[in-house]
Amino acid sequence: MSGNTFGRVFRLTTYGESHGPGLGGVVDGCPAGLELSEEDIQKELDLRRPGGGEKGGGADTARNEPDRIRLLSGVFAGKTSGTPIAFHVENTNQRSADYDALADVLRPGHADLGFLVKYGMRDHRGGGRSSGRETLSRVAGGAIALKFLETRGISILACACELGGIPAPLTDVPGAALRPFFCPDEATVPLWEKRVNTVKKAGDTLGGLVRIMAFGLPAGLGEPVFDKLDARLAYAFMGIGAVKGVEAGYGFASARLTGSINNDACLPFTPPGAASPGASALIPASGVLPGGAGYVFADNKAGGVLGGLSNGAPLAMTVAVKPISSIAMKQSTITPEGRPVDIAIGGRHDISAIPRIVPVIKAMAALTIADYVLLQRCARIR
Amino acid sequence: MSGNTFGRVFRLTTYGESHGPGLGGVVDGCPAGLELSEEDIQKELDLRRPGGGEKGGGADTARNEPDRIRLLSGVFAGKTSGTPIAFHVENTNQRSADYDALADVLRPGHADLGFLVKYGMRDHRGGGRSSGRETLSRVAGGAIALKFLETRGISILACACELGGIPAPLTDVPGAALRPFFCPDEATVPLWEKRVNTVKKAGDTLGGLVRIMAFGLPAGLGEPVFDKLDARLAYAFMGIGAVKGVEAGYGFASARLTGSINNDACLPFTPPGAASPGASALIPASGVLPGGAGYVFADNKAGGVLGGLSNGAPLAMTVAVKPISSIAMKQSTITPEGRPVDIAIGGRHDISAIPRIVPVIKAMAALTIADYVLLQRCARIR
Amino acid sequence: MSGNTFGRVFRLTTYGESHGPGLGGVVDGCPAGLELSEEDIQKELDLRRPGGGEKGGGADTARNEPDRIRLLSGVFAGKTSGTPIAFHVENTNQRSADYDALADVLRPGHADLGFLVKYGMRDHRGGGRSSGRETLSRVAGGAIALKFLETRGISILACACELGGIPAPLTDVPGAALRPFFCPDEATVPLWEKRVNTVKKAGDTLGGLVRIMAFGLPAGLGEPVFDKLDARLAYAFMGIGAVKGVEAGYGFASARLTGSINNDACLPFTPPGAASPGASALIPASGVLPGGAGYVFADNKAGGVLGGLSNGAPLAMTVAVKPISSIAMKQSTITPEGRPVDIAIGGRHDISAIPRIVPVIKAMAALTIADYVLLQRCARIR
Amino acid sequence: MSGNTFGRVFRLTTYGESHGPGLGGVVDGCPAGLELSEEDIQKELDLRRPGGGEKGGGADTARNEPDRIRLLSGVFAGKTSGTPIAFHVENTNQRSADYDALADVLRPGHADLGFLVKYGMRDHRGGGRSSGRETLSRVAGGAIALKFLETRGISILACACELGGIPAPLTDVPGAALRPFFCPDEATVPLWEKRVNTVKKAGDTLGGLVRIMAFGLPAGLGEPVFDKLDARLAYAFMGIGAVKGVEAGYGFASARLTGSINNDACLPFTPPGAASPGASALIPASGVLPGGAGYVFADNKAGGVLGGLSNGAPLAMTVAVKPISSIAMKQSTITPEGRPVDIAIGGRHDISAIPRIVPVIKAMAALTIADYVLLQRCARIR
Repeated sequence: MSGNTFGRVFRLTTYGESHGPGLGGVVDGCPAGLELSEEDIQKELDLRRPGGGEKGGGADTARNEPDRIRLLSGVFAGKTSGTPIAFHVENTNQRSADYDALADVLRPGHADLGFLVKYGMRDHRGGGRSSGRETLSRVAGGAIALKFLETRGISILACACELGGIPAPLTDVPGAALRPFFCPDEATVPLWEKRVNTVKKAGDTLGGLVRIMAFGLPAGLGEPVFDKLDARLAYAFMGIGAVKGVEAGYGFASARLTGSINNDACLPFTPPGAASPGASALIPASGVLPGGAGYVFADNKAGGVLGGLSNGAPLAMTVAVKPISSIAMKQSTITPEGRPVDIAIGGRHDISAIPRIVPVIKAMAALTIADYVLLQRCARIR
Repeated sequence: MSGNTFGRVFRLTTYGESHGPGLGGVVDGCPAGLELSEEDIQKELDLRRPGGGEKGGGADTARNEPDRIRLLSGVFAGKTSGTPIAFHVENTNQRSADYDALADVLRPGHADLGFLVKYGMRDHRGGGRSSGRETLSRVAGGAIALKFLETRGISILACACELGGIPAPLTDVPGAALRPFFCPDEATVPLWEKRVNTVKKAGDTLGGLVRIMAFGLPAGLGEPVFDKLDARLAYAFMGIGAVKGVEAGYGFASARLTGSINNDACLPFTPPGAASPGASALIPASGVLPGGAGYVFADNKAGGVLGGLSNGAPLAMTVAVKPISSIAMKQSTITPEGRPVDIAIGGRHDISAIPRIVPVIKAMAALTIADYVLLQRCARIR
Repeated sequence: MSGNTFGRVFRLTTYGESHGPGLGGVVDGCPAGLELSEEDIQKELDLRRPGGGEKGGGADTARNEPDRIRLLSGVFAGKTSGTPIAFHVENTNQRSADYDALADVLRPGHADLGFLVKYGMRDHRGGGRSSGRETLSRVAGGAIALKFLETRGISILACACELGGIPAPLTDVPGAALRPFFCPDEATVPLWEKRVNTVKKAGDTLGGLVRIMAFGLPAGLGEPVFDKLDARLAYAFMGIGAVKGVEAGYGFASARLTGSINNDACLPFTPPGAASPGASALIPASGVLPGGAGYVFADNKAGGVLGGLSNGAPLAMTVAVKPISSIAMKQSTITPEGRPVDIAIGGRHDISAIPRIVPVIKAMAALTIADYVLLQRCARIR
Repeated sequence: MSGNTFGRVFRLTTYGESHGPGLGGVVDGCPAGLELSEEDIQKELDLRRPGGGEKGGGADTARNEPDRIRLLSGVFAGKTSGTPIAFHVENTNQRSADYDALADVLRPGHADLGFLVKYGMRDHRGGGRSSGRETLSRVAGGAIALKFLETRGISILACACELGGIPAPLTDVPGAALRPFFCPDEATVPLWEKRVNTVKKAGDTLGGLVRIMAFGLPAGLGEPVFDKLDARLAYAFMGIGAVKGVEAGYGFASARLTGSINNDACLPFTPPGAASPGASALIPASGVLPGGAGYVFADNKAGGVLGGLSNGAPLAMTVAVKPISSIAMKQSTITPEGRPVDIAIGGRHDISAIPRIVPVIKAMAALTIADYVLLQRCARIR
């Protein structure tokens, strides 16, 4: 089935190949009355823009794409009108020639073989639809979701928390967007840069981990039994190229704890200035019960999700990103005809999906949560 | 939105609370002409049946539920007719009294608080819909998917690969279903039993890891960009209660490898007796290209998925299961009114979701893959 | 794709064959906190119950099915809990023998041929899934939707407005449920009874028209461009067996009017006691604008829908029902092997789908509108 | 919920307002390997192009839109690649000034009031999303579906069969596309032209009926119980602006027939040159049974659908189109603030939705049938 639409009520449909005319998408179901401009979207797009600048820390490619967003519908007099919001980005600076050599090879670690077998053909130019460039549409759609979540007092933060096996302490997550690699810790940046440069010289690539967090989520988001909040977030993240694992809260580590240690204790709590959902958003891990009584979790090993429903604590998940499959080193693979062939991939390629994947993960989280926030309006009789 | 339907073409809708009249579901979209009997489903249900018997290894509860499945529709003259297949299991032996004490407490680590805030009410009897008993319907629906996959030469194996921090080598995965804890290694069983008994005495609980594998998958299954094969499998697994993490192939470990090590080399290969998809199913990690040429992967770090599409290698994923949240030890929590309260959960509770979760994970994998196998029929012009 | 689930947020999934173990369904997405009992559903089911009693006016079958509904989940302490609401009705009094003769014939006007070609097999007993008995599940699900709509001040009325070519004036629509044939006019009843008896003697059958109306709908329900309110209502009604046509408002007649005649004039209007949506519901064809000003339509040729959105006037649609295809007269058809054969269908069959289809149409309208009422909660920023 | 996506496996998502930057859509789920060019789509778009030329017969507007389609993705080397197919048409020649007068009035017969109440705002320029111009995206998407159906031997014909109350005999349906008004009868053209001119002088508008037919449909298409073939076609047609009624086969007329007259007799039949589905497509109303035996219907009062499944006879449905609501005559209505106001709509407006709606109905039929053709591949075990 068409796998290019994401979401149920707040929905994003995307299109585009890395070397076709362009990429874009349609957001359908965004509530009317939301202030939205091309700049709101461009701002997020620029965060994933490549270019060896400070942000990339040298881990991403040299090609500099303007990626100017154009809004095609759904906004009237500066606000969303309730109709579908379409956006498009023209492809420019495409050096298809860079990829001609790839027509006769199935790149190791890529979707080339799968596409060929699935469809009986494939667009070999830069991976076509399976190119990382596809994520541009996710970030644009996610930017609209982020604007909506802002109006609900929900904010999302993402950063790289490990690169090439070197972890970074979460000393300053909000500041990550201003550092190379979306690194949450100033002191870790030089260590990562050193690791990147070493690997780059060897013609190899790196993987890493990304931490995603959401603050201000009301408790109760999620739709059991199949559409648990963390279930659809896992779906959202694993659907991004290069992602190989997802965990909520302590995740795999919790599998090694006993119940008495893994459970988060819950205590009575009244936030300063009356127990209102708004106020509770100010205090991590706290929330309000239907009766109006406040509560707080002593810890957040669950990552803000219990039984598939948000519990009032900050959402915290970790995403594992494999090393980029396109390496300059020589590798053995086969041609579309099945003949053995050696390949060393040149062209402009990142050393790691980090940092560029960070805004993509943030976008997918925003799209998923916006969907749940709207669905929650249908949960009860009023 | 209603979160109780899973799948797109091959769909399962489930219902039921642990202490209501019963549980069941409806499978819609199962192809007509599939041989199906109540026994086919009962067989799988019995694998998740509790009871301190050998299978449980003492990790699961003492209550013995018959859980007799009843087929209500969709089968005519021993075969599926193309109409919805409904099944139902009556709840018996419900000691609701066991749970009366829970009406006034929000159990730590459970969905109680989320349900209360989401719906303004909750069924406190054994967790109601959020009870592990809900998975009974998944296993029944999955049994139908397994029967369908059999006809396509696809088989699914699942086992526990770690319990309470003690890993088990995959010496005999097929035999796991005959061992306590679905353990793949005979020598590990006593170690796990010892760990379980120690923890049980302490009134505590354990978590673990489950390995899921699928053999005979044709390459090309999956629907980029959002509905990648591993994305929907992650969604399927994270949607099971107690699951906190999912990874494909090397998963989190691959985030620490370099690209040159993480990529699986692909080599020309001709399976014994002509290159046919059928034949290739016999050789793990092999497949056939459109032109008819065969190939094989030297390794399977990717876990059988590249770019969200199956690649002909066996699907291999790992699922992290947290320790059971209901413990006999005393814990601090709050009442629905927000008052602090201590609780020690008695009643009949498992020490670990393992082994009972293993057939559930197998069922969700079967449902997901059956969906993709059918969708694949729509991928190309014929 | 599985075609047995209806709705997007308020969803009904049904199952069951006329001569299998039973029929039922699952309502998922019903808001929590709705008072609901088995009697609420039984009441609606009884309206479609056959039996030559007064209600049927002799147009329906002689077999008397108890059709006792049983609620299997989703209700706790007398209220919906937010979890799926499953219901089941056992099949009783099945004289499968009545249908053995049909195993070797494809009945004219029935789905027999289509099912045989589609699935390569068919359940010949009473039409299996294509039996009118399938609608029992729709009425049960619709009863839950009706209870929800009541809480929103929305009521739905349905009646037969023509039978066997004899129209009935809409003198008393609310009283229709108490008259034979759901006839809205006392004086028309004997005319219809006479027509029915004549046709019955001839071994023939009759068709008719059903009028469906909804009062208290807020303006703005509907989701352009594809999911217009009347579009999904047409889908809902045409999906009922024996329905061959649907029109909104003046429908086919409006195709013969000029725009100046067909347009409904809109006038300022303030309902007695302030302009509130509640109050406006009391005055047909009136509504309230965002600024609070009231309005009323001088006429309702549009049937309450403009541009696919409700406009505050009562919803009014007409459904065309073909004559029952099972007739006692001899007809020519073929066997599943393609041999010519004559058939005269005995057994217990209705002379007309009216009156039994009336509650089914009402149920489908309720399910459709409940879905839109919930979706409307997602339309705007708040 | 987002109502701008149509279809389940073969899906179209559309966007765009009449006076925004442009309109377009994304077709997702089209099988790979289909030959497709911009010209294939442009050809269909040109059929709905306005302009007082011969085709319009004077019934449509004077503004001449180039409406040049641009393919943005999904096609590689002249064939669909299996990835989403996006297309866009720039809006040109927008005289928004024509519509400034409409900012302060809710036009009778239009969606203005509904949009205002639903979203709390509206784009008044030419109706924005509710403009007939929106159908451009449907025709473009339908053109892709038509190309796919061609490969399956399925063809779709549409024509106007009544205009302003004057019916046209179906003497030459295939030739309709070459005549003014898509009229199927040469002799009727002048009668319609005369009617149009009279009404145009009066500043009034006309409605009409459209006949849609599909040939070469295999029997068995459709997904009971809710997704019957005619149910989703009714949904598809009623979702088009100005459509007020839909019927299949004899439709409303069949409600006045007796069963013995309404049933279509089925006879054994062997098409020339062996009984193959291909061959049967050549003979209207014929088909082939699983055993290989052929059959033919003596008549087609059912319109090619029985029990919601195609039966091998040509699909035949009729659609009722209301007169254009924008008339030059003075009408009474209200302002967004609820004040009474008179309005006479100037600007460039059609006298009738016919002929421009004919290709739109054809497109919606193609999209619906393409979806079912693909879903049918999942109906049986193979």
